[in-house]
Amino acid sequence: MYRSHSCGELRESHINNEVTLAGWVQKTRDKGFVVWVDLRDRYGITQLIFDEERSSKELLEQARNLGREFVLQVKGKVIERTSKNSNIPTGDIEVLVQELNLLNPSKTPPFTIEDQTDGGEDLRMKYRYLDIRRNPVKENLIFRSKVTMEVRNYLSKEGFIEIETPYLIKSTPEGARDFVVPSRMNQGQFYALPQSPQTFKQLLMVGGMDKYFQIVKCFRDEDLRADRQPEFTQIDCEMAFVGQEDILNAFEGLTRHLLKEIKGVETVAFPRMTFDEAMAKYGNDKPDIRFGMEFGELNAVAQHKDFKVFNAADLVVGIAVPGVASYSRKELDALVDWVRRPQVGAKGMVYVKCNEDGTFKSSVDKFYGQLDLANWAKATAAKPGDLICVLSGDTDQTRTQLSALRMEMAERLGLRKKDVFAPLWVVDFPLLELDEETGRYHAMHHPFTSPKPGQMELLETDPGKVKANAYDLVLNGNEIGGGSIRIHDKDIQSTMFKHLGFSPEEAKAQFGFLMDAFQYGAPPHGGIAFGLDRLVSILGGQETIRDFIAFPKNNSGRDVMIDAPSPIDEDQLKELNLKLDIQS
Amino acid sequence: MYRSHSCGELRESHINNEVTLAGWVQKTRDKGFVVWVDLRDRYGITQLIFDEERSSKELLEQARNLGREFVLQVKGKVIERTSKNSNIPTGDIEVLVQELNLLNPSKTPPFTIEDQTDGGEDLRMKYRYLDIRRNPVKENLIFRSKVTMEVRNYLSKEGFIEIETPYLIKSTPEGARDFVVPSRMNQGQFYALPQSPQTFKQLLMVGGMDKYFQIVKCFRDEDLRADRQPEFTQIDCEMAFVGQEDILNAFEGLTRHLLKEIKGVETVAFPRMTFDEAMAKYGNDKPDIRFGMEFGELNAVAQHKDFKVFNAADLVVGIAVPGVASYSRKELDALVDWVRRPQVGAKGMVYVKCNEDGTFKSSVDKFYGQLDLANWAKATAAKPGDLICVLSGDTDQTRTQLSALRMEMAERLGLRKKDVFAPLWVVDFPLLELDEETGRYHAMHHPFTSPKPGQMELLETDPGKVKANAYDLVLNGNEIGGGSIRIHDKDIQSTMFKHLGFSPEEAKAQFGFLMDAFQYGAPPHGGIAFGLDRLVSILGGQETIRDFIAFPKNNSGRDVMIDAPSPIDEDQLKELNLKLDIQS
Repeated sequence: MYRSHSCGELRESHINNEVTLAGWVQKTRDKGFVVWVDLRDRYGITQLIFDEERSSKELLEQARNLGREFVLQVKGKVIERTSKNSNIPTGDIEVLVQELNLLNPSKTPPFTIEDQTDGGEDLRMKYRYLDIRRNPVKENLIFRSKVTMEVRNYLSKEGFIEIETPYLIKSTPEGARDFVVPSRMNQGQFYALPQSPQTFKQLLMVGGMDKYFQIVKCFRDEDLRADRQPEFTQIDCEMAFVGQEDILNAFEGLTRHLLKEIKGVETVAFPRMTFDEAMAKYGNDKPDIRFGMEFGELNAVAQHKDFKVFNAADLVVGIAVPGVASYSRKELDALVDWVRRPQVGAKGMVYVKCNEDGTFKSSVDKFYGQLDLANWAKATAAKPGDLICVLSGDTDQTRTQLSALRMEMAERLGLRKKDVFAPLWVVDFPLLELDEETGRYHAMHHPFTSPKPGQMELLETDPGKVKANAYDLVLNGNEIGGGSIRIHDKDIQSTMFKHLGFSPEEAKAQFGFLMDAFQYGAPPHGGIAFGLDRLVSILGGQETIRDFIAFPKNNSGRDVMIDAPSPIDEDQLKELNLKLDIQS
Repeated sequence: MYRSHSCGELRESHINNEVTLAGWVQKTRDKGFVVWVDLRDRYGITQLIFDEERSSKELLEQARNLGREFVLQVKGKVIERTSKNSNIPTGDIEVLVQELNLLNPSKTPPFTIEDQTDGGEDLRMKYRYLDIRRNPVKENLIFRSKVTMEVRNYLSKEGFIEIETPYLIKSTPEGARDFVVPSRMNQGQFYALPQSPQTFKQLLMVGGMDKYFQIVKCFRDEDLRADRQPEFTQIDCEMAFVGQEDILNAFEGLTRHLLKEIKGVETVAFPRMTFDEAMAKYGNDKPDIRFGMEFGELNAVAQHKDFKVFNAADLVVGIAVPGVASYSRKELDALVDWVRRPQVGAKGMVYVKCNEDGTFKSSVDKFYGQLDLANWAKATAAKPGDLICVLSGDTDQTRTQLSALRMEMAERLGLRKKDVFAPLWVVDFPLLELDEETGRYHAMHHPFTSPKPGQMELLETDPGKVKANAYDLVLNGNEIGGGSIRIHDKDIQSTMFKHLGFSPEEAKAQFGFLMDAFQYGAPPHGGIAFGLDRLVSILGGQETIRDFIAFPKNNSGRDVMIDAPSPIDEDQLKELNLKLDIQS
């Protein structure tokens, strides 16, 4: 045993105890006749004291020569501090060191191991093992561990069985973003890493395992956006003999449990909203409902006047931004510029100041009188002091733009409070999505999602209109989970593949095993998958998933600490029957 | 909700309740005027009844046409059975069906879904989703889930944090058996899948996370022996500020907890044995100590007589096989043939029958008198009625051969009882192992294992003699866990790499990040990893790990159900900058 206590453990009640501690030197303070050393481990910091009166000359000298991050073992006596520090749990005591054992020295770390560090992200990633010593990172990893334990214990108590599905699976052309793994023993053949255990969990349902879950790594070789990782973790779940209502209830239970146990937040029944409603009200299929600013559609009250821009638009829609009617001309111009940025893409913005005296002042006073504007205020639920911001144009684009503005204003006004949690279900997603480039429909969720009852016929006539038994769980403007009721009938699955552009041969080659399985008594089933990285970062009140991953990769998919990926030996390639074919 | 109760739930107390069940048709019995259907789900079997008197004609007809594995939903009333079945928990009742809803029909399954099936392994693997419906497979998967929950809860309570380490890591030439993953975004470069999270867990120790665990998939692209899988699961653990004693205690605690919670078996302190002792006493570094038959070395009492075979041998060693002195000449000859099989490789075997009257009869009576043989009996602890089997030759080979014989005899005599659990620690493993082919030493455990204190010098003079701070946990003749105290000093690690034949450049290229880390205050640390698949199969009292894996691969590393690995598209290869280079 290197220690009798941790560095976070000693209290007044330990005074006069002989203790052994081990940890890292956080800092030293040398006052000449006395040297203090803050010793740190995972559990906290304990102050060590060496002085001329009570410590040997050699010991004091040893203490003086300690550098930051040196690893020590010390033996000593717990004594009362003369000046206590109420900021840390061990602040009442210090340890008068009698013996110091230097376990390992340290070079000066490349950045300070403090809550606020001077190291930039690149440096911290290269020395991630030092970054993890910092409280915020350490606490995030412990937090993640706690969340996963809660998930596992809750689901286990509910009768779910955790079952490991394989990582070396089959590549599918649909999965253009599969990572593949050449097989040495099967010449010219490849495994793929799973983008999700989707088909396996469905096969487990066919196998009668009726309540499955797994916390599992998934892989996607895609161009990484700011906050994506090529490997990510899902809480993957599936149930048999259930309808959508059963799944929503089961996983609302899980989410409510997490919010309560982890955050101490009690929630009532989660609101439910159809996809169409979410798009109309928030311009977004994952609305942040911690705040209002719901969309007010203004076609009825803003069109057919003399303002041509609105008359030509499919949609005129506004939000009432609370309390900013007082914006200066300069601020308003800046806001118009903001919506015109290419990232947002609006052509312009009309605004209405709702003055405290009940009058209105707008950027389109030429076309609209006070009565018109009062109708706009009514439609957007604007109150005196609010600023109504109005966009117009193509319906989908305008909604997306106004949603961006709504989020931006909420951010500016501090309405996205990280200690408030507002979950909701978005249901009735479209089954198919039109790929603008290819003109082909593809599955919005995945090809195993079942259409709403009675909508199979619509597939032939108006595929874009077909709604699916698909749902997302949204928390604070983030999709934290998504799932669907699956198809469990071979013929419906075949029809679906046909509509997605698979030839019968392709369908058989890729998913034959699943369609075979459906012939041997597949039960009705459905499920959901949560993005654990995202869930944990939202529960932790932070935005970046990298902060909750021990060894994340950067935006090029590189681990800069171990320097991966990297070239491999000719011999190794040869054994895999591969050759590089680099295009210069 | 498709059901109000499960098929394992209904009891006498439910009689007269209206219930809804869903599940699979296990079998139907048609007596003409009455039809019984056994309905099965994950939880059990409930008997459904349809009869001429109480069921409509249509319903009875529907019931008659049900095939095996059809999926049903039924509504009905719980009634008392006229002839009860005490073999199943629901045997007191049956459900008089009022409504039958066929959820999905089924083709006749390719093998019977019974505890004892008529399906061979290949067929069962191809239709694994049907195999999982069978009780033994289903129970194994549930058992595995239970074991992993116990492991997680125990370790969490002990302050261990589960931390996910990356799956896309760096390939090392040492790791000739790495699976590699080409990176699309980093042309000509590859990730590797981890053979274990070894370096990452050590970095977590450097990062101060002091108690880490993870239940994690690992990968090894090796020619598969009978009971290996290319992907396997480890319980991976590491601790900082510990010595060997701390680790043994911590994980003896875990193992004891599992034996108690899962098997109801109380264990005392696990015996500890050095590697040398295990080899001398059992000829095996993972001895099965559920039974005796310890080796008795006979050099002192068998050499220097006229028997040249023994005189020429490095080692003469025997075991007393209990109670088989009565073996016939034919049986003895067969046993001699058995040890001569190429798989065992002994040249011959000397035996001594210890007669009930205290006399001895041996195959070498020409050379040894009763007094000699009495000494042999003493050395092997043979009792009247035992048969002493003696092998001789090169020390290592002879021990291995006698170990094989010992296990064979234990198997034949039923001494390997699957409800008996005999754990032990084997400690003080050699640090290095001589590769007979290359004449090079390589690390027996891995290159990060620390030598015993004070043995660094021996590395120069007699590397084969150096012992390591390495240990295995052995249960019933299987290594279920293994680990070591690691090197945490950069210079010692460099020296070790040198002795393992790494040039400084190679060491830096492959493990530079770890040696860098050691310069910034690495604490003393060590750990262990358990093979979960093996652990679960031993706790489950079975021998094959495949039985405890939902979707295992066969001996060629193939998943025959999904048909993986498989060829991939030209386009996909091109995107990865790869070409096939098949040698015909």
